[in-house]
Amino acid sequence: MSILIKNAKLNEIEQDIFIQGKYIKKIAPNIDWEADTIIDGTGMAALPSLMNGHSHAAMNLLRGYADDMALMDWLQNKIWPLEAKLTENDVYWGSKLAFLEMIKSGTTFFNDMYWHFHGTARAAEEMGLRGVVAAALIDNFQKKDMQAAKILVQKLLEESGKYSSRIQYAVAPHAIYTVSKDTLIWLRDFAKEHNLLIHTHLSETQNEVEQSLQKFGKRPVEYLHDLGLLGPNLVVAHAIWLDERELELLAENNVKIVHTPASNMKLCSGIMPLPKILEMNILTCLGTDGTSSNNNLDIIEEMKIASLLHKVNSRDPQQANAQQVFQLATLNAAKIFAIPAGEIAVGKLADLILVNLDAVSLVPGFNLISDIVYSANGSCVDTTICDGKVLMQNRHVEGEEEIIANARKVANDLVKR
Amino acid sequence: MSILIKNAKLNEIEQDIFIQGKYIKKIAPNIDWEADTIIDGTGMAALPSLMNGHSHAAMNLLRGYADDMALMDWLQNKIWPLEAKLTENDVYWGSKLAFLEMIKSGTTFFNDMYWHFHGTARAAEEMGLRGVVAAALIDNFQKKDMQAAKILVQKLLEESGKYSSRIQYAVAPHAIYTVSKDTLIWLRDFAKEHNLLIHTHLSETQNEVEQSLQKFGKRPVEYLHDLGLLGPNLVVAHAIWLDERELELLAENNVKIVHTPASNMKLCSGIMPLPKILEMNILTCLGTDGTSSNNNLDIIEEMKIASLLHKVNSRDPQQANAQQVFQLATLNAAKIFAIPAGEIAVGKLADLILVNLDAVSLVPGFNLISDIVYSANGSCVDTTICDGKVLMQNRHVEGEEEIIANARKVANDLVKR
Repeated sequence: MSILIKNAKLNEIEQDIFIQGKYIKKIAPNIDWEADTIIDGTGMAALPSLMNGHSHAAMNLLRGYADDMALMDWLQNKIWPLEAKLTENDVYWGSKLAFLEMIKSGTTFFNDMYWHFHGTARAAEEMGLRGVVAAALIDNFQKKDMQAAKILVQKLLEESGKYSSRIQYAVAPHAIYTVSKDTLIWLRDFAKEHNLLIHTHLSETQNEVEQSLQKFGKRPVEYLHDLGLLGPNLVVAHAIWLDERELELLAENNVKIVHTPASNMKLCSGIMPLPKILEMNILTCLGTDGTSSNNNLDIIEEMKIASLLHKVNSRDPQQANAQQVFQLATLNAAKIFAIPAGEIAVGKLADLILVNLDAVSLVPGFNLISDIVYSANGSCVDTTICDGKVLMQNRHVEGEEEIIANARKVANDLVKR
Repeated sequence: MSILIKNAKLNEIEQDIFIQGKYIKKIAPNIDWEADTIIDGTGMAALPSLMNGHSHAAMNLLRGYADDMALMDWLQNKIWPLEAKLTENDVYWGSKLAFLEMIKSGTTFFNDMYWHFHGTARAAEEMGLRGVVAAALIDNFQKKDMQAAKILVQKLLEESGKYSSRIQYAVAPHAIYTVSKDTLIWLRDFAKEHNLLIHTHLSETQNEVEQSLQKFGKRPVEYLHDLGLLGPNLVVAHAIWLDERELELLAENNVKIVHTPASNMKLCSGIMPLPKILEMNILTCLGTDGTSSNNNLDIIEEMKIASLLHKVNSRDPQQANAQQVFQLATLNAAKIFAIPAGEIAVGKLADLILVNLDAVSLVPGFNLISDIVYSANGSCVDTTICDGKVLMQNRHVEGEEEIIANARKVANDLVKR
């Protein structure tokens, strides 16, 4: 399988891009090689596709179901009761809807944490996306649930082998306030043994820190450090309430951070110290969180929100500039998840998008990255390619009508159940 | 001229909307009146169109030209030098581009402040939008410029009569740091005599307040109060740095405020105290500011940014809820500018949009207003109607390709001039 993209704007000039299998094989003006598929990129710019470092894809089913509430009230009284009723089929259609939304806004990679692993993995496999699908874990400090969690994690590791190389397996203890010390330690060793990422929520609210101090006598990062969890395979979402010592621990142990500004603002969780974290060279990317706290999966919008938030919060308009936040959403995520993508270059994976330069928000077009970050939204993406396959062209994704109809039906059934 | 919209979702049920001339004549299921134009609203929701309370339309030419800079550095070294070179033809094409962008994101009203009045007024007239086009004024405290300003304001008042009733004339002293006391007083009387709105920038930066204290011995609002400028016809943009006494003065004098969160965040101007202002019942709407400090004109995006900013800033997730910010962008603006619109009701102006409920960000669709505010962006708008005329249908605006090509050319010529 090969694709030849003709005359797309790349690094300020019109070039052709030749994709062979999953990889970018050649970039040059006027490539005359034969290809199975030819895409006319005239009037479009080629950019690396976006990467979403923290999602709960199936929560697309719950979008708009409950808003304008505080995190714990929202979780305990609205989200968790509905989630308890979810079936694998629900998760499958919720995930299909999420992945459709990602493709339509130029995202081809996600790092997901949710229940009913196979619902999400199967949806991603079918939709052609690349992602880390984790077995989410909550044991609520109950012995019975600890045992069940371990069995599930082992079972899913084996079963995850049936998916393509695009789907990576990980473990995801929900948070230190929902997962016991014993389970965390067991997961640490299990992840090490099988070379897996550990994906967790960390220090999302001030209350979480207070509870940690009360319960464990230490702050969340110190607690995880003492349990031996901090390491290069740990990916933490949110990371808002951190003191100096905790930041140092994260940096020293090469822990990765996913910044989710829209969700943090909407739930009033707080503001992650992004400028400080970047200054300390802690590898950080962007994530949307689930759509019931965002409420979309548009990483192009997330870049703008990230930049604006940190500018006004730091009182420094040079903070979180367009180039920096674009890198968070592309190259940084590629580094964090060890994927040879996040830039358009020979030898890299063909995970890329074509954006329509005649989209009104990209005109007149003085600075493409600034226009993408500050002016555009996901609808400027015309073509989305992942793993050398065209997932969207001319804004159409195969089967999108069916996905929308089924997801809507499943969501409406769920709230009546 | 009449339009019949069939089967659009309005207030949770499918209804028909009959438009006669500029006005909404009837709303009911199954209207069987004959109409010149019939629009199939199946799968779409009808909403009032959005209103933009503070724009510099022609600045669309400068989008992406200079970003990540502080307000004064940005104005003095990047924006003002280019603006000095602008011709009326440039302003015309920049405004056409802006109005195209507004139509494509569901906005049909704007309140604009810029140079070369006729460039903007003519563009709005042609594009079919409703707007307040103001004669912007800067005299830099120079006698010569004061005289010229007065002559211009009088001349434009007469000339503005040639436009349709959609185009309203106003005066716009740029700010208290660029316009003299004499000119402000003269404008106050001129506006009163001719029943005009006064549109100005107010207390955008902390530095502006400091300068006011140094130069006038009082804070900006007190200064305007002492000059007799505060009144129901005064519309102030930004209104960030206000003390208690100033807020009271604005409330007592029924001054109107336009909140521009994206621009204020991007330029690090500060955070307007929206919750306090709403609590004091000061009439407030939303604005985008110009695209070189936003960098788009999408009021749907602006609603989300407003809500998220005030939630995280107040630490209260119930602040700036979806319904409230939607009202800022519709009914509040209609009240401020005395336009019988901002809601879909019999007897109101036919300024409305149809949004595509199959847009992926509006699925599953539990709460339309929440979905519009938190999840959607301007691209969910399928049809835009203003003053009883269809400006966009199926996302196509007549002549959009020509506008984009000409605006791009004019912008590129401008920076080389």
